[in-house]
Amino acid sequence: MGNNVVMSLLTLLTDFGTSDAYVSIMKGVILTRCPEAVIVDISHEVPPGNVHTAGHVLSDAWRFFPEGTVHTIVVDPGVGSDRRILAAEVAGHFFLAPDNGVLSGVFDQAVPERVVMVENEEFYLKPTSQTFHGRDIFAPVAAAIAGGLGGEGLLKLGPPTDSWIHLPRANAVTGPGGAIAGEVTHVDRFGNIITNISGDDLPREMETSIGRHVIRGRQTSYVAGQSDEVIALIGSTGHLELSINHGSAAEFLGVTIGDQVGVIPKVEGGDA
Amino acid sequence: MGNNVVMSLLTLLTDFGTSDAYVSIMKGVILTRCPEAVIVDISHEVPPGNVHTAGHVLSDAWRFFPEGTVHTIVVDPGVGSDRRILAAEVAGHFFLAPDNGVLSGVFDQAVPERVVMVENEEFYLKPTSQTFHGRDIFAPVAAAIAGGLGGEGLLKLGPPTDSWIHLPRANAVTGPGGAIAGEVTHVDRFGNIITNISGDDLPREMETSIGRHVIRGRQTSYVAGQSDEVIALIGSTGHLELSINHGSAAEFLGVTIGDQVGVIPKVEGGDA
Amino acid sequence: MGNNVVMSLLTLLTDFGTSDAYVSIMKGVILTRCPEAVIVDISHEVPPGNVHTAGHVLSDAWRFFPEGTVHTIVVDPGVGSDRRILAAEVAGHFFLAPDNGVLSGVFDQAVPERVVMVENEEFYLKPTSQTFHGRDIFAPVAAAIAGGLGGEGLLKLGPPTDSWIHLPRANAVTGPGGAIAGEVTHVDRFGNIITNISGDDLPREMETSIGRHVIRGRQTSYVAGQSDEVIALIGSTGHLELSINHGSAAEFLGVTIGDQVGVIPKVEGGDA
Repeated sequence: MGNNVVMSLLTLLTDFGTSDAYVSIMKGVILTRCPEAVIVDISHEVPPGNVHTAGHVLSDAWRFFPEGTVHTIVVDPGVGSDRRILAAEVAGHFFLAPDNGVLSGVFDQAVPERVVMVENEEFYLKPTSQTFHGRDIFAPVAAAIAGGLGGEGLLKLGPPTDSWIHLPRANAVTGPGGAIAGEVTHVDRFGNIITNISGDDLPREMETSIGRHVIRGRQTSYVAGQSDEVIALIGSTGHLELSINHGSAAEFLGVTIGDQVGVIPKVEGGDA
Repeated sequence: MGNNVVMSLLTLLTDFGTSDAYVSIMKGVILTRCPEAVIVDISHEVPPGNVHTAGHVLSDAWRFFPEGTVHTIVVDPGVGSDRRILAAEVAGHFFLAPDNGVLSGVFDQAVPERVVMVENEEFYLKPTSQTFHGRDIFAPVAAAIAGGLGGEGLLKLGPPTDSWIHLPRANAVTGPGGAIAGEVTHVDRFGNIITNISGDDLPREMETSIGRHVIRGRQTSYVAGQSDEVIALIGSTGHLELSINHGSAAEFLGVTIGDQVGVIPKVEGGDA
Repeated sequence: MGNNVVMSLLTLLTDFGTSDAYVSIMKGVILTRCPEAVIVDISHEVPPGNVHTAGHVLSDAWRFFPEGTVHTIVVDPGVGSDRRILAAEVAGHFFLAPDNGVLSGVFDQAVPERVVMVENEEFYLKPTSQTFHGRDIFAPVAAAIAGGLGGEGLLKLGPPTDSWIHLPRANAVTGPGGAIAGEVTHVDRFGNIITNISGDDLPREMETSIGRHVIRGRQTSYVAGQSDEVIALIGSTGHLELSINHGSAAEFLGVTIGDQVGVIPKVEGGDA
């Protein structure tokens, strides 16, 4: 961490929804163990068990929090199995998550400084259920980290490890002639289609193809399009997005996560 | 502000939903810039781009927060266009919002003491995108206001202005004979139908007409009606509401925002 | 309370949803009256007026918060009627709720140390509406309790009472031969079916019957089942649950709250 202040900022990312008591129970446990905790919800609307979506949301969010923040992710279809729990320090942030690949995007963005397997039951709530580790393990361990277990302190939670489940990143590929083949990685609330094609790789003059549709050119903001016109632009995560002003591009195009997206350089006047 | 305490209470009102990382990213930026910030969600469920609904929700809520609160509204279909961003001080509260009329209801309730155009990029997150001003402009500027930029300090954000987009208020009209013509302004989660007819204007004996339906009399609370009976009463915002105990009046009557509502004085015994 | 620290941790449980301003208005009132308040949402997604569900969610959650927490429940279909409002101290926690049975589950878990009828209008917001007691009574009274009205102080809110509406608990019944008859009390976001049959009462070898389905045996965690296989296990609240790994047991079995569940001891080898 960049300074000596003991931080007590925590984020929560789960698939628990907000109808049941589960999220608030985790907060109750955290505030019991760490009364000065400030807790921010990243989201609790991850589709049940969807590690891919959780990883995407986490990758977008974590860097905008201050160093020392403890990010706890409980999207954990393997709860009660022998899957491990990881605590990691990455770029001055702390992460606590099941070892199911949900941290892959974070580890792609920055090399972890330290990863341990959480095994020290001294920190757990007792009795420890096999059905709600969010309450019995993740919450009290997150509170312990937020309360000052940083740096070498992570080793108090369990032994270090240098292997974990890493989900392969679907990288966009640039082919001969500069054509880029990528895919849809996320559809947001507005129906914006977010891809894995980096804005840095985009040619100035271009066409984007998705399904049977071709989108000409590239804009700089959502308002550039006419009504019902799909536009291409570089979105807030730095990747190619497809969008309709005042509408859902995903619905309009009938597109879903994993669909293929292509970009072709379009040279005007044939001068290349 | 009424005292010298530097307040750091902020509210957020957006159309971002809670599935994506957008809201939490704004909170991360605010807490990075203003670690003592206390952030309250007004709502993130405003229908995408719906400035009318956002204005209605904001008008209901802001007065119940303490003076010095910084209210940030990001319902911003014009993000990336040349629409301006306004910071305003109203009755000791601070408001930060796109200049799209979303503050009209607040300005109708109290004369703003100071309005400035937010232009000073010194406060922005860099690089500043054209697609996510919530993260890059609204969040860091809100943190700056919450951190002590109050009063004259707003001028550090940009030059004062005395013109802005003001959405006309749909006022209820009282005609000859005391008949009142108004409209539906909001339907809440319970299906209560909220109108723009002020409770102060209502005759003691009255009939309310909406669509083909006529509701006789006026009650003082939701429980006054029989099952499936629509009742009229003065709701918590001081306006005429139509309600069904244990049911949705809006569904039952097939009513939506903008529909016309009439009130007729009904004198009993013909003694007037 | 276990110590002399004045706590200012509050929880909110309502049926207000998060689209309207109602919840945030309550928070604004609380923070105006008690600026150091820390407010945690238990849930605002209780189905409108559903006292049963609210009581279930509350019963699950409250014990995981620290002593001194003020729990405010506004699921209040009788707002504006002559129903009373109760403030109670239970196991060092404070509860504020309409007298409609929503606290029954808490009172079943621990004997209340003190229950008063909230009547002292000195603490209310003025003018006090008949339509939004959450804003005008519950929020300011909760802030007063959180600000130091604990212990004997509750008597400042109104006179003590020893009668209140108590919803009968649907107890599971153990019959001759050890057969247990219970019912479904909750279905969570994952489609897990939660019953009122205590895990302590379950035989080691057993069969569970629900509708036309029979589930053999008992597992210790959600991952024990094959795909599409319904399993029985003791869930995080200590009760019998029925679950499908990676799916909704409630949808698969077509089960809803109140449905009957039976457990039969199943002795292997006939050695009993």
